[in-house]
Amino acid sequence: MTRVKSYAALKSTSPLEPFDIDRRSLNKNDIKIKILFCGVCHSDIHMARNEWGNTSIYPMVPGHEIIGVIEEIGSQVRKFKVGDNVGVGVYVDACENCNNCKSNNDHYCEEGIVLTYNSYEYGTRNITYGGYSKMIVVKENYVIKIPSSMDLAKAAPLLCAGITTYSPLKYFKINKNHKIGIAGLGGLGHMGLKFASSFGSDVVIFSTSDSKKKEAFDMGANHFVNINKREDVKKHLNSCDYILDTVSANRDMSQPFSFLKTNGIIMLVGLPMEPLAISSFSLIDKRKGIVGSAIGSIAETQEMIYYCNEKNIYPEVEIIPISKINEAFDRTINKDVRYRFVIDMSTL
Amino acid sequence: MTRVKSYAALKSTSPLEPFDIDRRSLNKNDIKIKILFCGVCHSDIHMARNEWGNTSIYPMVPGHEIIGVIEEIGSQVRKFKVGDNVGVGVYVDACENCNNCKSNNDHYCEEGIVLTYNSYEYGTRNITYGGYSKMIVVKENYVIKIPSSMDLAKAAPLLCAGITTYSPLKYFKINKNHKIGIAGLGGLGHMGLKFASSFGSDVVIFSTSDSKKKEAFDMGANHFVNINKREDVKKHLNSCDYILDTVSANRDMSQPFSFLKTNGIIMLVGLPMEPLAISSFSLIDKRKGIVGSAIGSIAETQEMIYYCNEKNIYPEVEIIPISKINEAFDRTINKDVRYRFVIDMSTL
Repeated sequence: MTRVKSYAALKSTSPLEPFDIDRRSLNKNDIKIKILFCGVCHSDIHMARNEWGNTSIYPMVPGHEIIGVIEEIGSQVRKFKVGDNVGVGVYVDACENCNNCKSNNDHYCEEGIVLTYNSYEYGTRNITYGGYSKMIVVKENYVIKIPSSMDLAKAAPLLCAGITTYSPLKYFKINKNHKIGIAGLGGLGHMGLKFASSFGSDVVIFSTSDSKKKEAFDMGANHFVNINKREDVKKHLNSCDYILDTVSANRDMSQPFSFLKTNGIIMLVGLPMEPLAISSFSLIDKRKGIVGSAIGSIAETQEMIYYCNEKNIYPEVEIIPISKINEAFDRTINKDVRYRFVIDMSTL
Repeated sequence: MTRVKSYAALKSTSPLEPFDIDRRSLNKNDIKIKILFCGVCHSDIHMARNEWGNTSIYPMVPGHEIIGVIEEIGSQVRKFKVGDNVGVGVYVDACENCNNCKSNNDHYCEEGIVLTYNSYEYGTRNITYGGYSKMIVVKENYVIKIPSSMDLAKAAPLLCAGITTYSPLKYFKINKNHKIGIAGLGGLGHMGLKFASSFGSDVVIFSTSDSKKKEAFDMGANHFVNINKREDVKKHLNSCDYILDTVSANRDMSQPFSFLKTNGIIMLVGLPMEPLAISSFSLIDKRKGIVGSAIGSIAETQEMIYYCNEKNIYPEVEIIPISKINEAFDRTINKDVRYRFVIDMSTL
């Protein structure tokens, strides 16, 4: 075991604070990663504050957008070597035996994935601890290669915000023939915009104000709708093939459905805490639907990293020292982030 | 104009009663149909009682599962002749100009279809009246051919219950490689069962009691789940490719989603009055979705009729005289019908 400096929530109501954890000694397939950067995901806040149905385990070290460099490898590690830049995303283990694991859907493992933090290692009561930490030990199969040409700080949010938006766009084969709505222009939404734009789609942003209008166009949007302005709304009714819905707030779902054309699909990646209220009439009129999507498989995450490297696609980030993490949580809740915080872990 | 004996609701709180209506004189593309049989759809009750958001128009003559024989044709009618058996379903006009009308999605007409009853003819305040009537006048393009070999009484419910279940199963290309759940074994559900079974699928019925278990197997079901029995439920978790959801009651949607496998889709054809409460977690875990479907196009309805004739697929019906219509409404609400009432219009 190795004692490692980290930042943890000790209970749901306390701020994050310095905390030492133990990382396991390397097994033969393990990789020891010195953490360089870690993105701040909105779910880190929900989890730290126990806002998702009392599923939180304390002490909790959040962080699942991890970029680092390999310090040591287990005896049977074959795909990586010391000094490689690597990433770790939302999960660090899966059963590797179920139909989903065997068909590159390991993120939907039928036994349940082991999350990077706030999980137990399979068959144990060993809590997993995330990336707000100096070091992590992860099985080789759950480590992502990061090309040496990539911007490491900016690459961190690709491991969650990136793959979460890339995966549904790829699943539905989004391309230049599609008009794609993006609901919400935050950490997820701005990545969805960049990906959809890179696939050649006609992209319309649905936002609750005009405050991000210029930035949306700068990032590749073709249209911008302030959903509180009737004249904006009218122009885009019944027009979208798909909408990538990144909004985590509870709201009237009849409006997003009204932007879909016949056979249109809402790709849901936001996680409102209350159930969505969806009128059957919204769905049945013109055969509309809503399909959820969570992150992506390890193979797809690797594919996305190579795609981002090739196309120079990165999130917009604000780099912070770990000492600012509680402030960053508050600013994230207040939508005062453009568009993702990344912690420089050298500050810990 | 022709005065025609009918049964109507004069207001939302009164039972149906004999009522004379006027049918228009034949235009050049019109067909005059002597009504022989008319199915009783649950939506007839919702509409007659103004239970769908105050959308009812009175007097109302319900009925959109109409089978009859042609008595007279307009001067430019080409596809039909006097004496032909024909059907009329849920709508009697569409714009014929929009993208949906031009792509065999006329049931999703962007201008809005004219319903067989409880609508206004385009550009007028002329109320449309349905099939609880001795005669109806309908534009040729909205009339369905009924082969002479078909059982006319039993064919009536195909015009709504039939096409409503056939269409989504065809849209999603349901076949022998699929396990299909059918939620609810009523007028819609039993047709969904027969169609899915005819396509070679492995069919599981989800019902709230065991009362229809034997009949379900007789109609082709491979499995039967009483959703209130834990041991039944456990066997079919995470197993269905699709579920055809015909239930019109408000309920916890997490259970139907739990029966879907990865990438599974609920095909929603029931119309609960309250919005469905759907947890994002139900959707996002294993990329599940729900897609609505309403009836089908005229071309698809015709295709279904030919398919039913070829495969000898019919609903189970109980034939009633028009004098029993109010009793039939009550029995439908109490689920005391196996599985569809059909009115013998010669009794009017």
